[in-house]
Amino acid sequence: MDANQNNDPTKKTYHKRATGKALETVEKHSQDHELKLFGSCFCPFVQRVWISLEMKGLDYQYIEVDPYKKPQQLLEVNPRGLVPALRHGDWGCYESTVLMEYLEDLQMGEALLPSVPKLRAHSRLWSDHVNRHIVPGFYRYLQAQDEKSQIEHGEELKEQISKLVDAADKSGPFFLGSKMTFVDVQMAPWVVRLRKVLHPYRGWPDPDPTSRWAAWVDAIEQDHAVRATTSTDALYIDSYERYFVRV
Amino acid sequence: MDANQNNDPTKKTYHKRATGKALETVEKHSQDHELKLFGSCFCPFVQRVWISLEMKGLDYQYIEVDPYKKPQQLLEVNPRGLVPALRHGDWGCYESTVLMEYLEDLQMGEALLPSVPKLRAHSRLWSDHVNRHIVPGFYRYLQAQDEKSQIEHGEELKEQISKLVDAADKSGPFFLGSKMTFVDVQMAPWVVRLRKVLHPYRGWPDPDPTSRWAAWVDAIEQDHAVRATTSTDALYIDSYERYFVRV
Repeated sequence: MDANQNNDPTKKTYHKRATGKALETVEKHSQDHELKLFGSCFCPFVQRVWISLEMKGLDYQYIEVDPYKKPQQLLEVNPRGLVPALRHGDWGCYESTVLMEYLEDLQMGEALLPSVPKLRAHSRLWSDHVNRHIVPGFYRYLQAQDEKSQIEHGEELKEQISKLVDAADKSGPFFLGSKMTFVDVQMAPWVVRLRKVLHPYRGWPDPDPTSRWAAWVDAIEQDHAVRATTSTDALYIDSYERYFVRV
Repeated sequence: MDANQNNDPTKKTYHKRATGKALETVEKHSQDHELKLFGSCFCPFVQRVWISLEMKGLDYQYIEVDPYKKPQQLLEVNPRGLVPALRHGDWGCYESTVLMEYLEDLQMGEALLPSVPKLRAHSRLWSDHVNRHIVPGFYRYLQAQDEKSQIEHGEELKEQISKLVDAADKSGPFFLGSKMTFVDVQMAPWVVRLRKVLHPYRGWPDPDPTSRWAAWVDAIEQDHAVRATTSTDALYIDSYERYFVRV
């Protein structure tokens, strides 16, 4: 039994192995390599870095971290053993946005940030919005237990998403236009979890099919790197169950 | 009387004009220019961008924003009129860290981020620490009213600063060594305010003169761009008075 089950063997725990297409990707990247991504199959912050690696087509090794048995090579990079972490040779770093910038700076494979300074600033401004408003809003909503606070946090999340949509390229489908770039990757793991987690647990609605938002969600869900790093639905349902207080 | 005085004419308000060396810098940069920094003389987030402009030796126009009479050119860039904001021609952006990255991307004047990807990632990781732990810790400590929470938040701030010092180059005096770079600029406005605000209001101690931290504080306080954007002590004392609850 896992420590996070709190002595309740019926309580579902998070998975320690990707499933579906994500498992195929893990298997393709199981060989030792100097560039290592330490991850957890259910973690959206890990998925950001994982999508970036896949979009860039880099060679790398994916290492699934058991939170109760953290590997020494990860602890050397981050003593707290947080994921995502990248190790590149003897050096390593952590924090998903910092790691995405690092991969950009390597200038290998496809660039996710545009080259024009104004568009880079625009991308970073709205990445910051995702990190400071959308991501925390997602968890506040998921954790809200009573109806009143669920309604309140659901509205708050919709409002923060609307601001992002208003800042996006009008024809889309992605943030800057026809190509998936930095802000899309920052958002993608939570877009996936709107349908896979907030929909079943909170009744999060499908987007209005004629809206700009629907086109964006669809484009993200169809993207090859997003699909290649996404497990089957049950993995997410199970992983998030522990966030719910049993009354 | 200002709205922020809450009908109490004896209450000190924030200043609307820099003083001392910062005023000299404002006067040098009062002419119309396509690159405009919208700022407030007391605002530490503004000072980050201002220091960057001075370090890079760029031509720019400094515009002091009266929070109750926000200029149209600022509102076009950010409808909420938040500072710091940069306007570059018809385009503009906001958020101090995003603006510092934008100035880097212009590749004009001195670079504040190193060119080596690993050092850039290290710099961004610790900038993130400043933004997520040190800056909020500073305000929690400043706003704490009872003795117990003042002690608690003071310790918390010291601990977060210690982590940053531990991550810095051992010989210093700056974060990456002998040269002031990105993380130093991110920290500098709060280093200035430790002595000018937390010292008088909360008894924040001078650093142990033989410590790594003392060498860093000293180097930041002596830096020409920090000095060129710093007003006289009274401006900071007055500006922060409004944060205190009168019992």
